[in-house]
Amino acid sequence: MSRNGAEFALEAARAAGVEVCFANPGTTEMDLVAALDKAPEIRSVLCLFEGVATGAADGYGRIAGKPALTLLHLGPGFANGIANLHNARRAGSPIVNLIGDHASWHLEADAPLTSDIESLAGPVSQFVRRSTTPDAFGRDLVDAVAAATGSPSGVATLIVAQEAAWEAAEGESPILEKVAPAEPDAGEIDRAAARLSAQGGRGGLLLGGVLSRESLVAAARIQAQTGCQVWLDTFLPRLREGRGVPNFPAIPYFPEQAMEALSGLESLVAVATRAPVAFFGYRSVGQSGLLPAGCEVMALSGPGTDPAPGLLALAGALQADPPAPVPEASLAPLGDGEIDVMSLGLAVARWLPDEAILINEAATSGLGWGVHGSAAAPHDVLNLTGGAIGQGIPNAVGAAIAAPDRRVVALQADGSGMYTLQGLWTLAREELDVTVIVCANRAYRILQAELGRMDAGEPGPIALGLTELSGPVIEWTRLAEGMGVPACQVSRNEELRDALEARNASRGPFLIEVLL
Amino acid sequence: MSRNGAEFALEAARAAGVEVCFANPGTTEMDLVAALDKAPEIRSVLCLFEGVATGAADGYGRIAGKPALTLLHLGPGFANGIANLHNARRAGSPIVNLIGDHASWHLEADAPLTSDIESLAGPVSQFVRRSTTPDAFGRDLVDAVAAATGSPSGVATLIVAQEAAWEAAEGESPILEKVAPAEPDAGEIDRAAARLSAQGGRGGLLLGGVLSRESLVAAARIQAQTGCQVWLDTFLPRLREGRGVPNFPAIPYFPEQAMEALSGLESLVAVATRAPVAFFGYRSVGQSGLLPAGCEVMALSGPGTDPAPGLLALAGALQADPPAPVPEASLAPLGDGEIDVMSLGLAVARWLPDEAILINEAATSGLGWGVHGSAAAPHDVLNLTGGAIGQGIPNAVGAAIAAPDRRVVALQADGSGMYTLQGLWTLAREELDVTVIVCANRAYRILQAELGRMDAGEPGPIALGLTELSGPVIEWTRLAEGMGVPACQVSRNEELRDALEARNASRGPFLIEVLL
Repeated sequence: MSRNGAEFALEAARAAGVEVCFANPGTTEMDLVAALDKAPEIRSVLCLFEGVATGAADGYGRIAGKPALTLLHLGPGFANGIANLHNARRAGSPIVNLIGDHASWHLEADAPLTSDIESLAGPVSQFVRRSTTPDAFGRDLVDAVAAATGSPSGVATLIVAQEAAWEAAEGESPILEKVAPAEPDAGEIDRAAARLSAQGGRGGLLLGGVLSRESLVAAARIQAQTGCQVWLDTFLPRLREGRGVPNFPAIPYFPEQAMEALSGLESLVAVATRAPVAFFGYRSVGQSGLLPAGCEVMALSGPGTDPAPGLLALAGALQADPPAPVPEASLAPLGDGEIDVMSLGLAVARWLPDEAILINEAATSGLGWGVHGSAAAPHDVLNLTGGAIGQGIPNAVGAAIAAPDRRVVALQADGSGMYTLQGLWTLAREELDVTVIVCANRAYRILQAELGRMDAGEPGPIALGLTELSGPVIEWTRLAEGMGVPACQVSRNEELRDALEARNASRGPFLIEVLL
Repeated sequence: MSRNGAEFALEAARAAGVEVCFANPGTTEMDLVAALDKAPEIRSVLCLFEGVATGAADGYGRIAGKPALTLLHLGPGFANGIANLHNARRAGSPIVNLIGDHASWHLEADAPLTSDIESLAGPVSQFVRRSTTPDAFGRDLVDAVAAATGSPSGVATLIVAQEAAWEAAEGESPILEKVAPAEPDAGEIDRAAARLSAQGGRGGLLLGGVLSRESLVAAARIQAQTGCQVWLDTFLPRLREGRGVPNFPAIPYFPEQAMEALSGLESLVAVATRAPVAFFGYRSVGQSGLLPAGCEVMALSGPGTDPAPGLLALAGALQADPPAPVPEASLAPLGDGEIDVMSLGLAVARWLPDEAILINEAATSGLGWGVHGSAAAPHDVLNLTGGAIGQGIPNAVGAAIAAPDRRVVALQADGSGMYTLQGLWTLAREELDVTVIVCANRAYRILQAELGRMDAGEPGPIALGLTELSGPVIEWTRLAEGMGVPACQVSRNEELRDALEARNASRGPFLIEVLL
């Protein structure tokens, strides 16, 4: 059977488990588009901006645990996807980017769209390769899947010269060799167990990565056995949470509070993460590390790894008993009145559907959710891992496609939401079961907080103007309806309750603009 | 007077002629935001996405002939601006990017937002530097302005470590040394003149760069004297056009037509450009160059340079007479009926205000404008120079701020417009006198044309689905109104005429969605 490189490579991708392609193609990807036409087993999802495609692949990877493809157009198209790939890199999300470049013989001409794609891809990719023949393209695509799903997992980027897509492939389909993840080192586990046993409350266990119920239960067992502190990374890629799930505090965002919270630690065992550092380097703080001086750190595994094997082995080495059942937390009733960040979080928690996926890019508006989320129905939370705003709506696209039987709720700050609002269109096109809750405080509130932290006195009108999203007000209901997503606006708790109840009784995409 | 590095550097920027900053700041830019507060002579313009800020700086640079600042947040924020910086690079637009990075001492911690900014900046910048002290920051900013406004002009990127902004500056304000552009080489000019004189109609003059009336008149003189062909680059950064302005054909977009058009040339003199190459490398064409075999190319100056000195010197060396007046072209009346791309172009040309700036990102919908634009009132056109779509609305923001006394009309394809639609908000916020005409064919029509050019038979539903923007339809009037820009939708020529007449009698931003 004659097939070109694009067909050959997509066949290899399918065989390696790839099921979805988030696409924003251009002329150099037309052979890949034609090949997708012949590969209906791969769901092709059109995104109207590359940052939506990469953020969707991130959300998909966090839920599915395997990579989707993105299909991106040369250097500038890829560049539009970098910010969300940055978040994916920090999350360790498996993603395989396919970038259609010019034919190799056309590069020397330095045509208008030519640029140094490798230089752009490197900072967000743990695998970058260029395919220039059809057979290499197939093998490279399988290698990219292997790199994306390795340990650590992450972003793999494959640059495809056009001739590698359009010329005929000759060889046998390459096969993905599954590599079993390395077992935790028994000696390391024993040392960590001994240290935590000896330290009691001065010992700490820090959890990162994709945290399942199983991992959290293991952490609870370790805590019950040793009396250690258990902390979560501030921005976890994915966290199991809700009624009946062991619940631990996250390290606070601002370094002063984080250092205070961690001040009692003399020893820390990190799992699927590393020693905590401040998000920003503040002049008034003058240091990056958050641990007290002399605190010893031992990492069982780094970012992008699965925390489960290490935690289970550690609980086993400690001969820790099953934990006591998690006490049932209850949610207060929602009173009538103006919505604030606390009542918003309470309402979202109260009406969160069972087994929902909650995308948390609420920034300062997420305070109430942070308080109440652990008492909601069991769910998974995806957080903003790399600080590059505009992750939320795209993540919701990808999570909904990865888990069509689960409801997705995107708790979305308005400033961040504007970065990738085009994702609303894909929600409508694919009829995804997503509720976007826009927290409309009409400001970059976090920047106003940061201005307040400076020693610069009261900010003046120009500085304030650079943090305010009023003048004009953004009407999110119109933006949503303009892209085919029905929407409503609420400002009172009773309206929000009605809107959430109506949502839970219906399907498909919907946007609720919450005035704060 | 005590001042920190941010204040010191902005003072130097003002002294070097900088008047505008297109900003999308974050925490690491707070000292710069506070400094902008103290520098009201620099107009701070908030953009809700970095691609809007960089595209606005591009439009500003093309009209003002000097750089605006952009203010961007670390690597991911900068990355969001790369696509439009790519276009600016191809246009030779003067821009100075300021990227606030972490404090130097915080880099080693590899905090969530840390990335390799230099690697991201290199592909779109002709100047990349990192400032780590306040005094260096001031000097580096002046050097960046010098680099952006040199010959070739272009994109300069300055990465600012936070301590360079917040620590006290000690030194004297650095001064921008103006360097006079190099005079054309007299020997080169004489050789070009001799060649064009000898070649007659087999000789060609290819024009690139920012083309003023003066440059086009010089080209017309050269043509009248020598009988040479005169061609324009397909996508010029800026072109003077309209009644009374010498008018030359642009090289066709598709390589087959371009090669046919240029087939008679034996010699080419390029001014502010280089030998023409195909936009994409097609398998069926198999080559990049568009000139016939054996055609000799002589470049008086390259991309990013001012074509005027070379053209004036060449006309002088040829002792060319002033050209005959350009014959007055007339525009047909606009009949009633459904709008198509030809009637759209005719209507835009007929009702184009005098001295308008027309932003052309109409893609396939620009066909009618291409036919009729030269008969419109005198105006300047900004084209999509680097092929990275999403340039139009941001360019309109910047052009309107550079020329507050001129009207701006953005002829905008719908697929491209969705990339940076956030720019509509800045149009409303700054009350800019811009008419955005969205050409709503509800498809990536150029990709449908490219699919048709392939030998792959009829595209199937998946391939077609990846090129169609219907399902759901994008309602541009709602998107505009959601960001504070009043809007209307038209589908008939008489409605379009009424809308354009109403526009010409009013001010501020407006969006007309034209159903094609």
